[in-house]
Amino acid sequence: MKEVSNVSMGIDKISNSPIVFLRIEDSSLVLPIWIGPCEAGVLALILRKEDFERPLTHDLLLSVIQSLEAKTVKVLIDKFKKDIFYAKLVLKDKNSKEIKIDARPSDCIIIALKENIPIFVDDQIVRDHSIDSSLFYDLNFEESDEEKKDIRKEIENFDIDELRKRFENFEDDDNDNE
Amino acid sequence: MKEVSNVSMGIDKISNSPIVFLRIEDSSLVLPIWIGPCEAGVLALILRKEDFERPLTHDLLLSVIQSLEAKTVKVLIDKFKKDIFYAKLVLKDKNSKEIKIDARPSDCIIIALKENIPIFVDDQIVRDHSIDSSLFYDLNFEESDEEKKDIRKEIENFDIDELRKRFENFEDDDNDNE
Repeated sequence: MKEVSNVSMGIDKISNSPIVFLRIEDSSLVLPIWIGPCEAGVLALILRKEDFERPLTHDLLLSVIQSLEAKTVKVLIDKFKKDIFYAKLVLKDKNSKEIKIDARPSDCIIIALKENIPIFVDDQIVRDHSIDSSLFYDLNFEESDEEKKDIRKEIENFDIDELRKRFENFEDDDNDNE
Repeated sequence: MKEVSNVSMGIDKISNSPIVFLRIEDSSLVLPIWIGPCEAGVLALILRKEDFERPLTHDLLLSVIQSLEAKTVKVLIDKFKKDIFYAKLVLKDKNSKEIKIDARPSDCIIIALKENIPIFVDDQIVRDHSIDSSLFYDLNFEESDEEKKDIRKEIENFDIDELRKRFENFEDDDNDNE
């Protein structure tokens, strides 16, 4: 498993769908995951550190976890099948027993950002589905906090179509390792 | 507390916002609650008994509750303040201890429909904020299942603007009992 060091967002111009970009720690690799518009709305507010008018469904989820004396530990993006990424939310119950719950990556990423818990991506998924951002942006990969912010800004304007053209075989490899 | 016998949806033509209608049991009263577009999308699919492609955030919430050996009991719509309804999700933990968690009505209603648990509305809220559907539709209030379906269909085309005009003091009373 590889840890994610930064989360940012962009838009796929072809499908007009939101994408979340997971930057893989100590690398120039970025994993793009297409997400739904509702989750994108929540994620965008979190990334911009904007307040919500009302507690959202994810806040209710976190209240439930807290009320049942459990806590969030980490999230795993651990499976890719038929063009869909799958994830697990890992909790510890009140007896410190670890519990893994199947979930969408978008929900997991929102929870990870809210709870400040780590996101891990399966090695094989990183190999098969991440893209090398150093080919597109003149970035300094000795990441300081300030530089991470710069990376985020640049990736927000990421052109996924351009990327697809340059990596023509990017999606053809999807099912090689299932 | 009054129990809700039927849930349906409509659109507020002025704000173009979705509304959920909670029919109060053994009465012709309906409580309209404005909800967000994302929650409305989920609710509409549930009411139409359509399948979701992926488990949604509410499914994750229910998986978490189940994984932590708790269960959902009921939902309460128990407070109205500054034009906003507030609700509680009531759970029982593994020791059958009852836990009440603050939530939005929309999340609670979605969970109630998914879990087939009852929705209760505070008496004062019913008195202050519900509307009498018998004034607008020629309905038979000896509800059979078939008739409930008819009610739902009619209320789906509900004109909230018309309703507001007829009950001019409907919203002026909001804060009388806070």
